[in-house]
Amino acid sequence: MGSEIKRVAVLGSTGSIGRQTLDVIRALPGRFQVVGLTAGRNTKLLKRQVDEFQPRYINYLTDDVKPEDFTSCKFISLEDIAGHREVDIVVIATSGTGALQAALVAAKAGKTIALANKESLVAAGEILINEVKKGGARILPVDSEHSAIWQCLHGETQKPKRIILTASGGPFRSFSKAKLNKVTVEDALAHPSWRMGRKITIDSATLMNKGLEIIEAHWLFGMPVDDISVVIHHQSIIHSMVEFEDGSVKAQLSPPDMRLPIQCALTWPERLANRDLPVLDFKKVHSLTFEQPDTKKFPCLRLAVEAINLGGTYPAALCGADEATVELFLNGKIKFMEIPVIIEKTLEQHKNVKHPNLNEIMAAGRKAGEKALELGGGSDEC
Amino acid sequence: MGSEIKRVAVLGSTGSIGRQTLDVIRALPGRFQVVGLTAGRNTKLLKRQVDEFQPRYINYLTDDVKPEDFTSCKFISLEDIAGHREVDIVVIATSGTGALQAALVAAKAGKTIALANKESLVAAGEILINEVKKGGARILPVDSEHSAIWQCLHGETQKPKRIILTASGGPFRSFSKAKLNKVTVEDALAHPSWRMGRKITIDSATLMNKGLEIIEAHWLFGMPVDDISVVIHHQSIIHSMVEFEDGSVKAQLSPPDMRLPIQCALTWPERLANRDLPVLDFKKVHSLTFEQPDTKKFPCLRLAVEAINLGGTYPAALCGADEATVELFLNGKIKFMEIPVIIEKTLEQHKNVKHPNLNEIMAAGRKAGEKALELGGGSDEC
Repeated sequence: MGSEIKRVAVLGSTGSIGRQTLDVIRALPGRFQVVGLTAGRNTKLLKRQVDEFQPRYINYLTDDVKPEDFTSCKFISLEDIAGHREVDIVVIATSGTGALQAALVAAKAGKTIALANKESLVAAGEILINEVKKGGARILPVDSEHSAIWQCLHGETQKPKRIILTASGGPFRSFSKAKLNKVTVEDALAHPSWRMGRKITIDSATLMNKGLEIIEAHWLFGMPVDDISVVIHHQSIIHSMVEFEDGSVKAQLSPPDMRLPIQCALTWPERLANRDLPVLDFKKVHSLTFEQPDTKKFPCLRLAVEAINLGGTYPAALCGADEATVELFLNGKIKFMEIPVIIEKTLEQHKNVKHPNLNEIMAAGRKAGEKALELGGGSDEC
Repeated sequence: MGSEIKRVAVLGSTGSIGRQTLDVIRALPGRFQVVGLTAGRNTKLLKRQVDEFQPRYINYLTDDVKPEDFTSCKFISLEDIAGHREVDIVVIATSGTGALQAALVAAKAGKTIALANKESLVAAGEILINEVKKGGARILPVDSEHSAIWQCLHGETQKPKRIILTASGGPFRSFSKAKLNKVTVEDALAHPSWRMGRKITIDSATLMNKGLEIIEAHWLFGMPVDDISVVIHHQSIIHSMVEFEDGSVKAQLSPPDMRLPIQCALTWPERLANRDLPVLDFKKVHSLTFEQPDTKKFPCLRLAVEAINLGGTYPAALCGADEATVELFLNGKIKFMEIPVIIEKTLEQHKNVKHPNLNEIMAAGRKAGEKALELGGGSDEC
């Protein structure tokens, strides 16, 4: 146990999760070989990562790069990296639906998929889970909540009775509606506990993030949506809980740091010491608090549950609408409290496809995004 | 899975844990057959239990019982019940060292031992664990803390880095020394969260109970004493925690009710729905708090750690001294704050046997008890 080197591809290596994945790999020398790295437009950082980790394969989404910058490695498609025979673990650390096709390729090729990307499960959960089963692949969750649930399920032989997702509640959990109306982009980007990307930080503040996680948990653990509840836990120390048939509840705790769930997925079934990871100290943790979420002030949670209950292409439309609406907010086009209003209006106009294929899912997301931009008065931006 | 009927013997069926064990068995019809029941002096209750559960074998420790009261079953020794071929699970629910011999017989016979008795592990941990290994038996912990640790270890392939035992802190955790000096027996018997016997309730108030649990955890999970810490958690909802090599912590939670750990041991590896068990409701649980234990005000915790670090017969002497000293307190002979003083003085005079046999362990406990009574001015009571 433990001496074999795992070969890793990181899709989205220049984003928040991608960088932290490389932090973990750096902290555990001799355990991993980085075979592939892919970026969006941040080729400057990609270059530094390539110099350090020497991957064989890369990909990026921009034309303004000199080929001589990357002579040591080969540019191949995202999908070719995800399914490559030299890769054991595919870390999907991009946001949005862009990595969905790559996730499916990895699933078909029987890879271990360390999944940080929310949208692939939310929009196309049924298709992805089916491909994982057929391909003999496995998904190891990388976000803190689903990693917590997965860790709590280790060694349990029966399905849980209930999943309790914890939510930090975001920076505005105790704001009045009036105060929520005045929230600025800067306010929203200052998350109290987590180091995260911009999109997910806003999703965290609207509770959409938790809504998307309900949908993810539904697909990852085969749980009915009604058996997944959300509790606001401001300290972000309990990362989620599982209740079993006999009423026993297991929880996973740690200081909020994404590197732990990333490492859990990468090293599983082993657990390795990593000095960079913070340790929980009950001399400093004096109280863990719990509140019920307020879906009147934060309707995104309700919208997500409604979308998965309606099924078909609704969750994909939810993703597309949310992505566009958050963009509108970040660009100063709409107010914070307009985010759920525009998403809800978009979903009201959505035409559902009951058992969609991948194209129909992608189309639903795209259309919902366009509709949301239109409703937000930002369609000229497309 | 699950249809086979488990055959159970309950040693100490009329005590608090024994009665709750029968509550669980009653709540899960068709799962268990009660083969043996043993009591101390409460033969009136034993009679009712025999009428309800129809065991084949019984034992009790008093002569004032009419033989015709128990015509349906045979009186055999505790040891004969514990090792009987018709028994799968031996629940050891007595307190004190009286059941130690029976525990060893069950271990040698390869039984599943649902162990609620603290003293057998504390006084004779090394001997008992060796017999369990040799006999192919297993110990499933029944107290809430060790059950929590055991549940958190399910499916983990490596030894934990640290065990964090939670302690309610007892009813006096925030008392000043002056106030502690005035504590009455009635004050001490009113435990805030748990339904327990008198001896363990006092041990809970002095924190000796937690000290004994450190020693138990050391033997049950093969953990160095230095890697077992204690945190005061007044709500008694997190029953203990385990920290792993990577810093991830798992905790087990439930409303304080001994029937859950009892049921976990009885039904393991299954988990069964039981309507009698309370469910954790985060609409009602608003805060879980943590404090460091104060070993100046509650020296018993320190005394227990010192005893296991000294090893040999010291832990047995600790048990004997504690048992006698608590009795002195319950009989109004000494004050609450004299309990640790007398135990400490007793241990100071203890002559250690490094690798004791069972007789030496029993003798050490007995002698320490006598010395404690003498120091407490109650030797005439022996």
